[in-house]
Amino acid sequence: MTSLQDPNKAGTQRVVISVDAMGGDHGPAAVVAGISRSASKNPEIHFLLHGPEDELRRLVAKRRNLRGRCDIRDASGVVTMEDKPSQVMRNGKDTSMWSTLDAVRNGEATVAVSCGNTGALMALSMIRLRKLPGVDRPAIAVLWPSRNPQGFNIMLDVGADIRADAPDLLQYALMGSSYARNGMGLTNPRVGLLNVGTEEHKGRAELRQAYDLIADKASTGQYEFVGFVEGGDIPGDRVDVIITDGFTGNVALKTGEGTASLIGDLLKEAFAYTPLSRIASLLALTSLKRLQKRIDPRRVNGGVFLGLNGTVVKSHGSADATGISAAVKLAFTLARSGFSDRLAARVASAAEVAQDDPGPTAGRKDGTHS
Amino acid sequence: MTSLQDPNKAGTQRVVISVDAMGGDHGPAAVVAGISRSASKNPEIHFLLHGPEDELRRLVAKRRNLRGRCDIRDASGVVTMEDKPSQVMRNGKDTSMWSTLDAVRNGEATVAVSCGNTGALMALSMIRLRKLPGVDRPAIAVLWPSRNPQGFNIMLDVGADIRADAPDLLQYALMGSSYARNGMGLTNPRVGLLNVGTEEHKGRAELRQAYDLIADKASTGQYEFVGFVEGGDIPGDRVDVIITDGFTGNVALKTGEGTASLIGDLLKEAFAYTPLSRIASLLALTSLKRLQKRIDPRRVNGGVFLGLNGTVVKSHGSADATGISAAVKLAFTLARSGFSDRLAARVASAAEVAQDDPGPTAGRKDGTHS
Repeated sequence: MTSLQDPNKAGTQRVVISVDAMGGDHGPAAVVAGISRSASKNPEIHFLLHGPEDELRRLVAKRRNLRGRCDIRDASGVVTMEDKPSQVMRNGKDTSMWSTLDAVRNGEATVAVSCGNTGALMALSMIRLRKLPGVDRPAIAVLWPSRNPQGFNIMLDVGADIRADAPDLLQYALMGSSYARNGMGLTNPRVGLLNVGTEEHKGRAELRQAYDLIADKASTGQYEFVGFVEGGDIPGDRVDVIITDGFTGNVALKTGEGTASLIGDLLKEAFAYTPLSRIASLLALTSLKRLQKRIDPRRVNGGVFLGLNGTVVKSHGSADATGISAAVKLAFTLARSGFSDRLAARVASAAEVAQDDPGPTAGRKDGTHS
Repeated sequence: MTSLQDPNKAGTQRVVISVDAMGGDHGPAAVVAGISRSASKNPEIHFLLHGPEDELRRLVAKRRNLRGRCDIRDASGVVTMEDKPSQVMRNGKDTSMWSTLDAVRNGEATVAVSCGNTGALMALSMIRLRKLPGVDRPAIAVLWPSRNPQGFNIMLDVGADIRADAPDLLQYALMGSSYARNGMGLTNPRVGLLNVGTEEHKGRAELRQAYDLIADKASTGQYEFVGFVEGGDIPGDRVDVIITDGFTGNVALKTGEGTASLIGDLLKEAFAYTPLSRIASLLALTSLKRLQKRIDPRRVNGGVFLGLNGTVVKSHGSADATGISAAVKLAFTLARSGFSDRLAARVASAAEVAQDDPGPTAGRKDGTHS
């Protein structure tokens, strides 16, 4: 079984993050540049970096601020974007991804970060970290730019599993609200269940069942259930956490990203159109940068795998140093809050199997919020 | 049975559009303002306008360009946004929506336009116009701003039905590509089936079945099947027509709208931030207006109901004069191209029931493209 580290035990001065250096589009140089940024910002972070030792040693040596704060774990194999999850599960023991997850499994780190192949990472996470007691389908949660004061909403599942029945959707509500508490500091997050608006179609049987289950558990789960929400509420301010199955969530996520990217390009085009508009865009540069910072997908980088014994942060494959650094920051926030343990406790207690659970939650005394 | 008008018979000088004046958020004044705009732009359009006669007569009298081009059909009842489709189907005979659809049913107009309650409009359309032979589930298709040269992609279904099995998805491919040919002039539209990207999850059984069906019919259906696409392709340039079930499509549509609206507001905020950025935004005004025109949901206003004996254009409930005018323009384009007949022929021939079909396609001789 996985033994989970309590970051409080290690003191506030050291939070260990396990990082996969390989598998991203920009190679290990971008990953090392990203963790170097994070190291400068957060003196408490320590890294376990996984990949081909010689190459990593050379890259890390160039970053003075990583000295003494980054242990390298040699792993010669790399999971590529083309590898099938089933192959990786069978033959992936020598890969940096496997090694990255095993550091969490062994309790050396609390959170893992990888920008590799999502399907393979989820499949490996399932077999190396295993599902939390009470969780049938783990989920991937993302942060979505929104009108809420915290600037982001949480949506899950965005692609761990294309199916979700009513009990799964309840688990997502519990896990998503726990993430909102620990990752965003919202004590009583508002949860909505994604559906379509046309009244008599409020139909799919599993959604009506999930509605009742999620409503029932609102007080024990410490969230406010807002009921059904629509696609327009994902970037809105009616809810903090949006619950859906992985098929719908994945389509919504990619639609939102594609729309934002199209508008960004049209905006650039619009400003390049006439000499006057080019001058205007120079004048507007800081405004536009402020906007870009707000909607930049690199800054909200980091889907989080929930429902496992340990937390895995999945960074975009195309993440550059900024993106990696954002993912590490998220991993750090979650690790420091003791999120993995809190989530486990929350799921176990809501599933009313706490007394049968000999796992990581057994020794918990703090009981503030999870 | 519905007898469908061939607009060619009526000559190019007159295309009759049946318009529901009621049920929109801005009332009949916005509708009359909208059709007045369209009347100025297109001298071939003639309107049948449905609603309370006295009120409409007063509004129309104020618009000089509608003189002799707008017949009013008295209907005292109004379908509100709160009315349930089942109620409207039972008790809606006196409503402007019912009257609007019956003008298409009776062959007085080719296309109907309404900005009323979507669920009620679809339900009434099903009973008054009936489904085309060979179509099990009619669909709502929308235009989506995209990177393609035509500026828009077509997506369906966005909410007529929350379910779609493989044969339905094939019908959507046939109907959507016919719409792309007749509404956009694309002779060989590229069709994609919406799915999620993680390889081994290319899963849902009905999607794999639909993949084979749609691939098989590509040459008879006169489209190019690109295969599975993802959410990011909806505003992209890989395909012209995106096929999905009404649940997923509705979520994607509302997510895209919500994201565009959030970015628009953030952009305004960014420009209002400092005096310099306010000056910049003045200089950039024409550029920004150009952009707004491109992504303005009012200009792509008009979901189209496909798979019925006749075409229904559903305008946003919140449509103002610009939105109504955009919906009428779309209705006009489709009516003039003989879209209703062409679509019927396409669906019937692809379903290989053409010989059993005594309906609207029987007398068709032109056979160019449908």
